[in-house]
Amino acid sequence: MERPAPERATRKGRAMRGQTPIQRQTNYRQLRNPFPTMDVFSADEIENMHDTAMRTLEELGVKVLLPEARKIFAEAGARVDEMTDMVYIGRDIISAALASAPKSIECRAGARHRDFVLELGSLTFQPGAGAPHATDRDRGRRPGSARDFRELTQLTQHFDVFQMVPPLIEPQDVPTNLRHYFTAEAQLTLTDKFPFIYSRGTPQVEDGFAMMRGFRGLTDDEWRAHPHCYTIINTNSPRTLDIPMAQGLIDFARARQLAIVTPFTLMGAMAPITVAGAITLSHAEALSAIALNQLASPGAPVCYGTFTSNVDMKSGAPALGTPSHFQASLAAGQLARFIGLPWRSAAGSASNTNDVQAANENQLGLWGCLMAGATVIIHSAGWLEGGLTVSYEKLVTDAEVLNMIAELCAGNRAGPDEIGFDTALREVEPSGHFFAASQTMARYSTEFYEPIVHDYANFGTWTERGARDASMRATDVWKAILASDARPEMDDAKVEELRHFVERRTSEGGAPPES
Amino acid sequence: MERPAPERATRKGRAMRGQTPIQRQTNYRQLRNPFPTMDVFSADEIENMHDTAMRTLEELGVKVLLPEARKIFAEAGARVDEMTDMVYIGRDIISAALASAPKSIECRAGARHRDFVLELGSLTFQPGAGAPHATDRDRGRRPGSARDFRELTQLTQHFDVFQMVPPLIEPQDVPTNLRHYFTAEAQLTLTDKFPFIYSRGTPQVEDGFAMMRGFRGLTDDEWRAHPHCYTIINTNSPRTLDIPMAQGLIDFARARQLAIVTPFTLMGAMAPITVAGAITLSHAEALSAIALNQLASPGAPVCYGTFTSNVDMKSGAPALGTPSHFQASLAAGQLARFIGLPWRSAAGSASNTNDVQAANENQLGLWGCLMAGATVIIHSAGWLEGGLTVSYEKLVTDAEVLNMIAELCAGNRAGPDEIGFDTALREVEPSGHFFAASQTMARYSTEFYEPIVHDYANFGTWTERGARDASMRATDVWKAILASDARPEMDDAKVEELRHFVERRTSEGGAPPES
Repeated sequence: MERPAPERATRKGRAMRGQTPIQRQTNYRQLRNPFPTMDVFSADEIENMHDTAMRTLEELGVKVLLPEARKIFAEAGARVDEMTDMVYIGRDIISAALASAPKSIECRAGARHRDFVLELGSLTFQPGAGAPHATDRDRGRRPGSARDFRELTQLTQHFDVFQMVPPLIEPQDVPTNLRHYFTAEAQLTLTDKFPFIYSRGTPQVEDGFAMMRGFRGLTDDEWRAHPHCYTIINTNSPRTLDIPMAQGLIDFARARQLAIVTPFTLMGAMAPITVAGAITLSHAEALSAIALNQLASPGAPVCYGTFTSNVDMKSGAPALGTPSHFQASLAAGQLARFIGLPWRSAAGSASNTNDVQAANENQLGLWGCLMAGATVIIHSAGWLEGGLTVSYEKLVTDAEVLNMIAELCAGNRAGPDEIGFDTALREVEPSGHFFAASQTMARYSTEFYEPIVHDYANFGTWTERGARDASMRATDVWKAILASDARPEMDDAKVEELRHFVERRTSEGGAPPES
Repeated sequence: MERPAPERATRKGRAMRGQTPIQRQTNYRQLRNPFPTMDVFSADEIENMHDTAMRTLEELGVKVLLPEARKIFAEAGARVDEMTDMVYIGRDIISAALASAPKSIECRAGARHRDFVLELGSLTFQPGAGAPHATDRDRGRRPGSARDFRELTQLTQHFDVFQMVPPLIEPQDVPTNLRHYFTAEAQLTLTDKFPFIYSRGTPQVEDGFAMMRGFRGLTDDEWRAHPHCYTIINTNSPRTLDIPMAQGLIDFARARQLAIVTPFTLMGAMAPITVAGAITLSHAEALSAIALNQLASPGAPVCYGTFTSNVDMKSGAPALGTPSHFQASLAAGQLARFIGLPWRSAAGSASNTNDVQAANENQLGLWGCLMAGATVIIHSAGWLEGGLTVSYEKLVTDAEVLNMIAELCAGNRAGPDEIGFDTALREVEPSGHFFAASQTMARYSTEFYEPIVHDYANFGTWTERGARDASMRATDVWKAILASDARPEMDDAKVEELRHFVERRTSEGGAPPES
């Protein structure tokens, strides 16, 4: 879908000089993280954090609101206080969960070239998710709608660098008992990427599973052999696992679909003010959730995770892309490597508009995730206001950065052809130029990344063209993508079947979310 | 000058709870790079690039326009063709230069707390330099003036994260025979940081040296014991060393002042289109310049360097903050470690305004430099249009990012106090908050970096305050800094002496630049 340019350029290059053109090899769809991992704490400190998380689960406990979940923990030998809903989880239970959780997870999307593997070392991106509002330069900021949901899902499909489709915004104009039909149908019919299901109670989750299985035409064995969709499990920090989240951990485990566990621990608010304290709490909560998931079905695909940044101590507002956010990602990465599981982290921005702050925050947070070795980087494009809004323009401008990261994943070479002593260095006289060197002619059409929104025009030309900044140009980009209305290949009969399912379930009253 | 807030906040914290407040330790003035270095090429490939650079110098040669420089090379045994000005430099000459060049350089500024060391592992920043234009949101884009030069120098002084003062813009309203007096006087009297002298011929350089030595009150031995100023040496790629640059290498070596050698090699234009080819050429040119410098005075302080990005192949315009720029920094860093010298790289932006593109380009380029282990990162704040303009607002918004990098240099701890099992985790009930936890109370006033221009207000408050984006707020920041007109401590008699020197030399006609 994206980047047909290299093919065109190749033909042109060949025609011009009769040489074999040399093309860069990039594959945005299956990325490996090329960046060295960075430690913020020593190995001893990490071990102490892990040990303190174990003590936290054993001595302080976790409040588990779902009776079935408490029952599962109790049967595994955890001490449960039914008066207070507190569950005290021994480290033997955690160790068993970490032993049974898979280290490598093959995720199946709607098309085989969209499949990917989650394991330490692999790298996937999602745009910003879960925002109540949407915004763009033409229509302004508004409550997220069905139209926004579909449009943002199409934009996510367009950019190969997003391997997973989240629910970017909440379509608030769709009734809550029917919303999950709408979101699942939109993700399945507008994309062929790995889709998402909200954990808002078993009835909604089972509806979602039925839609995914039916649309993909999977046997029960096929469905269970690999995850075909995912959910995000947020603990209620500190130390609370609410009903829909606990239920989601159980339902996804039993269906062998992917649960991504993410305590959202804001340093100084719902978590300790220090990176070490906040990540120790996050680690404890994540391990309790992974334990429940693995107790429900040992070996089920589950992803460790954190989303930890600091608040602004003056206002209590979340701050993103800060040094503390960066270090929290590093610490979580160390703990993920300590337990050996694939894991998710998050970028994002607290800015109120797609400005320099928004760009700098998102990219700083992103580098924290990259150098922490995160497997899944969520909210990597489009988030404003700490996640209250997804911006169409920011989705585009952040995708530019992610594309460049994907280019860096491809690495580079310095063999004799690339060094080019005879095809470049020797050919050009002192103070000459390399525009016509043999090496240049063989490579000029594909050697460099071609930006989608960055502009290299000089000041005069740029001014003549209206002095339009990157956000303004990003409006053109998303409009062009939506105007092209590209759709992935799909079976019309399956689309029809999906509609019938939704119609039937709608006539039956749908399924309200549980809380 | 910057960040008095922690001290104030400390007193408040102590008063509130009678606890010993815990302060983060940061030192923006002497930074060590905490980021792991990243390789883009294998060790074998790097060795081949170094070897090809040696072959380039031996077989293809360098055009050296200054007769004295050719003489120095000839006396060292290089083959010199006086008909063509070509110098063919054997690898024995390069090896001797690399053996005599210091691996660690103590730079002396105007105040001891502004001194720093250049060596592999240390980290320094400079704002964008050498632009013909200045721009800000109030006054628009204009040819750089004396006023701009002074204002931008004051802004550079303000931010501790800039350890070196470059000539940010060209003060075009000052006659060229007097301009070096103006720039040296401005740097010496408005800052106490490590200053810059342009290599525009021996007369100007000697004027600059006299001003620096006199103003600092240094004996000849003190002056020569450590560098007290620096110059930038750009080769004319490919393979040309022009007269003022060659003269600068000789003059700075003999005065034992710092020369930072930087081929500016744009891939696909003045350098091969590949990262491997461009960096091989850059390496050859840098080594030839270092050789001339060390032949003129073995052991003189010299910094290896590169500034390599790609051009946009459609327009030939420079592109910055691209994947190729990033990889070029990595490759240069590998070669710097191969030869063991401190080295400079560069960030920067090609955008025409301080927008999202400008932010993303500068930060992506910056991360390339950081992960390449660059010792000096030039153009790390303020550059627009690939260096044709320095923006006051961009200087501020980029300084925010550099401050956050400086915060990351300070690292973090995860001892029992930071993990806080008893002072935080145990104190807060499930679903509670940490605002009043003992650990929070002891740390809340200094735990997090406080931004200079990023804003965490919610959308409603931000809208009420005028919906001002980061660039607009940056205007307020630089205006407040200039309005405060803070000056470093200095000896009035020395300032007077400096003025007399300039008056005398002005009445003598000054010194025009040489080319």
